[in-house]
Amino acid sequence: MTAKILDGRALAKEIEKEVIADTEAFRETQGFPPTIAVVRVGEDPASVSYARMIKRNFERVGMGFNLHVLPEWASQEEVIDLITWLNVDDAVHGIMIQEPMPRSIDAAAVRLVLSPEKDVDGVSPINAGRLALAAPMGRPSGVQDYLVPATPLGGLEILKRSGIQIEGKHAVVVGRSNIVGKPMAFLLMQHQATVTICHSRTENLPAVCREADILCAAVGRARMIKGDWIKPGAAVIDFGVNFVDGKMCGDVDFDEAVKVAGAITPVPGGTGPMTNVMLMKNVLKAAHRQVKQ
Amino acid sequence: MTAKILDGRALAKEIEKEVIADTEAFRETQGFPPTIAVVRVGEDPASVSYARMIKRNFERVGMGFNLHVLPEWASQEEVIDLITWLNVDDAVHGIMIQEPMPRSIDAAAVRLVLSPEKDVDGVSPINAGRLALAAPMGRPSGVQDYLVPATPLGGLEILKRSGIQIEGKHAVVVGRSNIVGKPMAFLLMQHQATVTICHSRTENLPAVCREADILCAAVGRARMIKGDWIKPGAAVIDFGVNFVDGKMCGDVDFDEAVKVAGAITPVPGGTGPMTNVMLMKNVLKAAHRQVKQ
Repeated sequence: MTAKILDGRALAKEIEKEVIADTEAFRETQGFPPTIAVVRVGEDPASVSYARMIKRNFERVGMGFNLHVLPEWASQEEVIDLITWLNVDDAVHGIMIQEPMPRSIDAAAVRLVLSPEKDVDGVSPINAGRLALAAPMGRPSGVQDYLVPATPLGGLEILKRSGIQIEGKHAVVVGRSNIVGKPMAFLLMQHQATVTICHSRTENLPAVCREADILCAAVGRARMIKGDWIKPGAAVIDFGVNFVDGKMCGDVDFDEAVKVAGAITPVPGGTGPMTNVMLMKNVLKAAHRQVKQ
Repeated sequence: MTAKILDGRALAKEIEKEVIADTEAFRETQGFPPTIAVVRVGEDPASVSYARMIKRNFERVGMGFNLHVLPEWASQEEVIDLITWLNVDDAVHGIMIQEPMPRSIDAAAVRLVLSPEKDVDGVSPINAGRLALAAPMGRPSGVQDYLVPATPLGGLEILKRSGIQIEGKHAVVVGRSNIVGKPMAFLLMQHQATVTICHSRTENLPAVCREADILCAAVGRARMIKGDWIKPGAAVIDFGVNFVDGKMCGDVDFDEAVKVAGAITPVPGGTGPMTNVMLMKNVLKAAHRQVKQ
């Protein structure tokens, strides 16, 4: 048996068409495009190239992109002033603060200033709280609508659009980062999965993974999850982005896993392309809500 | 074999002595006591008697207690005005908003107004977010200090003061409420446990529970968790408060569980008394931070 390949690239193209149509409709009604502002302090090379990719993606679909770069020696006050200014700028609907920031900047304090309504990267503690507190699907939520980090949102979208059942299933998330592992666990819980969160201190990790109907890997270790860690027929969502001998690979040993799993995302071409379109979707969502007010 | 009884009442008395000493020291330095303001809208009977108990407890240890009752027909604006006023009142260090509030009040909007620094019940989405985002113990946190709901905090304190190992162990939390189940799961995760969260839609719940080294029950169903759901030697923390034939019992079938578990909290006399002292501890913590500023 060979697993069904969950083709994130194809899915992302499909979603991008929806984004383009929605963006056009927005521009026609409002006279301006949904727009993201990316804020960077310093010149971290990965951040520089990520910003460049976002610019290319956003311009391709007709959305607005602004880049604000402060020098590495910018003060905490300058960063906060910029965010405060973007918070009230009606021409900006989404704000992304690139990390890592220089050590002299208190990143948590900056995230706290960010307007939750424009937090398209889902890093504001208010949005994190709203997601953590979110009622299960189908129940009245009790919390206001909120924005969720794009990467786990993309993983969830793959599961949903591939018709993989989440409700009642046992999902195991390996990795507890605040941008992937934890929000993915919260999303799965909200969708009625039983969720286990594993990490570097977990005892008997292979055995815990083997319990998973849905296994999500977000650890950042190349091919750590082996074929015999996977329950036959399980759905595997690999968020890993690692490089071995110059070649990109995930956290899951794909060649082994594909023989055991029921469905699996490849790396590259799985969760990565989904992150990009989900970020666009977040900006659209934020823009729609802001013009409504 | 019979489980060790985790005596929450005795532990709470021990902690209350610490609270009394700390409160006295605070009064001497500051000239006023650490003070809680309890806000109620309407006359929900359980809320009325809970407020009365808090008053008794706080006055016994020398802490301040204010009660603010608005009529059931109070408007959203009146409730928010009261909270806003308490937020800036220097004589109040902790605020508890009693729920349920009347249906005409948007509880989520009220919680959002509450100052996170005075949120001694841990209901502000900012504090929920900070807990959900909290770094594992021993790592630099990256988030500001925050307040956590008293009930799960009490459950954690029982585990810690009883010398039960959390790190690396598999903890299963049954129930996903925002005041007990979820924050308990986050606390356990922060203390390096592998955590599984179960709920009403979980398939094979008994089998999932049997994986637990630490089993936490917070469902609100009398004696639902049976002896054969428990791994021999496991620690069982029962947050349930149910009444059967006028007698209080937990979510765990104590008589069965005590023969299998390694350690177990009784109901009454387990997690309940701990909630009361942890609320006092939260007010003290908030008071100390506010006078420092």
